[in-house]
Amino acid sequence: MSTRPQHAPMTQFDVVDDELQVGGIALSRLAQRVGQTPFYAYDRARMSARVALLRRHLPQQVHLHYAMKANPMPAVVQHMAGLVDGLDIASGGELSVALDTTMDPGRISFAGPGKSDAEIARAVAAGVVLNLESESEMERAAMAGTRLGIRPRAAVRVNPDFELKSSGMKMGGGPKQFGVDAERVPAMLDRMRALDLAFEGFHIFTGSQNLKASALQEAHQNTFELAYRLAQHAPAPLNTLNIGGGFGVPYFPGEQPLDLAAVGENLESLMPEAAVRLPGTRIVVELGRYLVAEAGVYVCRVVDRKVSRGQVFLVTDGGLHHHLSASGNFGQVIRKNYPVAIGNRVVGTERELVSVVGPLCTPLDLLADQMELARADVGDLVAVFQSGAYGLTASPAAFLSHPGALEVLV
Amino acid sequence: MSTRPQHAPMTQFDVVDDELQVGGIALSRLAQRVGQTPFYAYDRARMSARVALLRRHLPQQVHLHYAMKANPMPAVVQHMAGLVDGLDIASGGELSVALDTTMDPGRISFAGPGKSDAEIARAVAAGVVLNLESESEMERAAMAGTRLGIRPRAAVRVNPDFELKSSGMKMGGGPKQFGVDAERVPAMLDRMRALDLAFEGFHIFTGSQNLKASALQEAHQNTFELAYRLAQHAPAPLNTLNIGGGFGVPYFPGEQPLDLAAVGENLESLMPEAAVRLPGTRIVVELGRYLVAEAGVYVCRVVDRKVSRGQVFLVTDGGLHHHLSASGNFGQVIRKNYPVAIGNRVVGTERELVSVVGPLCTPLDLLADQMELARADVGDLVAVFQSGAYGLTASPAAFLSHPGALEVLV
Repeated sequence: MSTRPQHAPMTQFDVVDDELQVGGIALSRLAQRVGQTPFYAYDRARMSARVALLRRHLPQQVHLHYAMKANPMPAVVQHMAGLVDGLDIASGGELSVALDTTMDPGRISFAGPGKSDAEIARAVAAGVVLNLESESEMERAAMAGTRLGIRPRAAVRVNPDFELKSSGMKMGGGPKQFGVDAERVPAMLDRMRALDLAFEGFHIFTGSQNLKASALQEAHQNTFELAYRLAQHAPAPLNTLNIGGGFGVPYFPGEQPLDLAAVGENLESLMPEAAVRLPGTRIVVELGRYLVAEAGVYVCRVVDRKVSRGQVFLVTDGGLHHHLSASGNFGQVIRKNYPVAIGNRVVGTERELVSVVGPLCTPLDLLADQMELARADVGDLVAVFQSGAYGLTASPAAFLSHPGALEVLV
Repeated sequence: MSTRPQHAPMTQFDVVDDELQVGGIALSRLAQRVGQTPFYAYDRARMSARVALLRRHLPQQVHLHYAMKANPMPAVVQHMAGLVDGLDIASGGELSVALDTTMDPGRISFAGPGKSDAEIARAVAAGVVLNLESESEMERAAMAGTRLGIRPRAAVRVNPDFELKSSGMKMGGGPKQFGVDAERVPAMLDRMRALDLAFEGFHIFTGSQNLKASALQEAHQNTFELAYRLAQHAPAPLNTLNIGGGFGVPYFPGEQPLDLAAVGENLESLMPEAAVRLPGTRIVVELGRYLVAEAGVYVCRVVDRKVSRGQVFLVTDGGLHHHLSASGNFGQVIRKNYPVAIGNRVVGTERELVSVVGPLCTPLDLLADQMELARADVGDLVAVFQSGAYGLTASPAAFLSHPGALEVLV
């Protein structure tokens, strides 16, 4: 038995007759229906189940937002808008997609450094909440409101004075381009009183892709403490306290799923004090990856099978131009394999050690490095799991001018 | 004086009144002409000068090809097609752009693992040279030729039995998805005699982005030796021997430009023997990055200036969604800064240590990390040098649904 770290079991999709089922459809049948490989398939039932799981574990009074940057496919956003309590957007482009849903614009919040004047004006006109990233952005928002004759809804994004430990990506603590340093927020709120802005609350986001419940628990504790301190300086009671997200999913060998129950219990324990110190404030948890990553699979087809000096290479029609993260080239210091299977032959009758590569003329184009998979041949389908977030839109689609990938929601 | 490693001097563009000139146009004027930031600007005179430099240093009989994957902008490809002796393509998409030039299709070669049947058929119909990446691709090429009634032109891409040392990216040696292992090529050539294929020659490509002349010299020596050995098994004399490229450009602090004269002198010394052992064979050097990287600059505008806990951040309207490599997230293990300047104030009256970031909600969106630049404010232009290759097309343009960058050739 291997003692090497293993991937967490990928049990989110059924396997029937050794074939992966996505949205209840056998993968090879789905490929026929899509009409081409490569494609991304997102399973709407998996997304619904994930939201239900969160509703079970998080305190009843916590509102759930979908951060659509994780997967902005309009069909996915439409589906999520029917499940969650709000949407979080990061650009004017995402604003357009969000406004095409039935979500109340007051439940849409817009974060991101470097918002353009045009984006701010559109957001104000739409009535969405601006998460202010700097004092100068606050001034620009107020000017936009005056120009448009609409009072902007504005929350302050706070760069906290603590860090989220063990996080895949730190978004707060220390010097950052995100938000306003916590210690400068009181002065900013003072200035806000003189401006024609509707104060909405705070956005305190510390980091993303965290698999340690204890780190999230500590961050939540610190977040509420910081919010209580800052609320004393607020020009009005907080409508909303967005405590961010950062719930991770297991990608790599050795990673275990987040203990959601532990995160929920801790949040539950924080609710009584929050009800007293922030009465009437909506507590928002904002999740992107955690809601959609596990519901998605990237599918490509083997076009050549090569043996080079003893190593087997499956050359596919998909690669880093569609799925940069799976190739290990997006914010990863050490390349590790995503969970991968031969989708139409999950277990197979024979197993072998192979590398799965794409069609690009670069050694970076690697979907699986020396992984044990069912023996595959030309025409078989390679499935990359955990691909529902930061997949297609986070990839250099035009690289080497190869055909694009399609996306389907099933 | 700082003893930290410095960037190689960026002298390819003139500076007039402390403002960068690209294509002879002041950068702020060029930005007005483009009509938006961010944009990439490529200077055609710099590309022409680079080709002239190569013609001076490489042996007169060496043919120069442009590997258009480095920059497939059609205007750039048109310009290069008028300067070089051939084009190298990596996909059906690139084939289309290449065929829109006046380049003789027989001087266009198509490399890349995982070519589709449709791509092979188009290439055969066009009369371009297929660089065969595997035995099975050879069979598919022959079948395409039979189907179309056209004799395919086919070279064998060889995975050499040596490595290019000190290379940014190894493309040959050891087990690889590229080409056919050198030791298997004789058998493949035997089989080729039975197929209706026009044998073109060999493509032996060992690696890319190499700054050490001695490593390239050694690889060239080995490449010719290997070609001589394999030529004995060839079904016909070689029309072409493509010895690859791999000439690097300095990106990061401490890197020095390649000693092109030394590379050229060594190649010169190899020519007499080549003329005897491969009479009538065209020797091709295939370059992408080296021809265009230094001719390009990426330009974005400062939209916010923030100070967070003592660090200055210039937030721009450009970022990793346009220029993934400059953000340090494309095949780089340790992030290092590209050379960057404030384009409309190169030296400035005041200097400061700043970080240049983009508008994306991720700490990965970093164009310059704690670099000394002229003091800049909102509206100023940030210029990222060495951006003419693997820029826009190698970036995740759809990430977070922000506006795209434009490209201009001036």
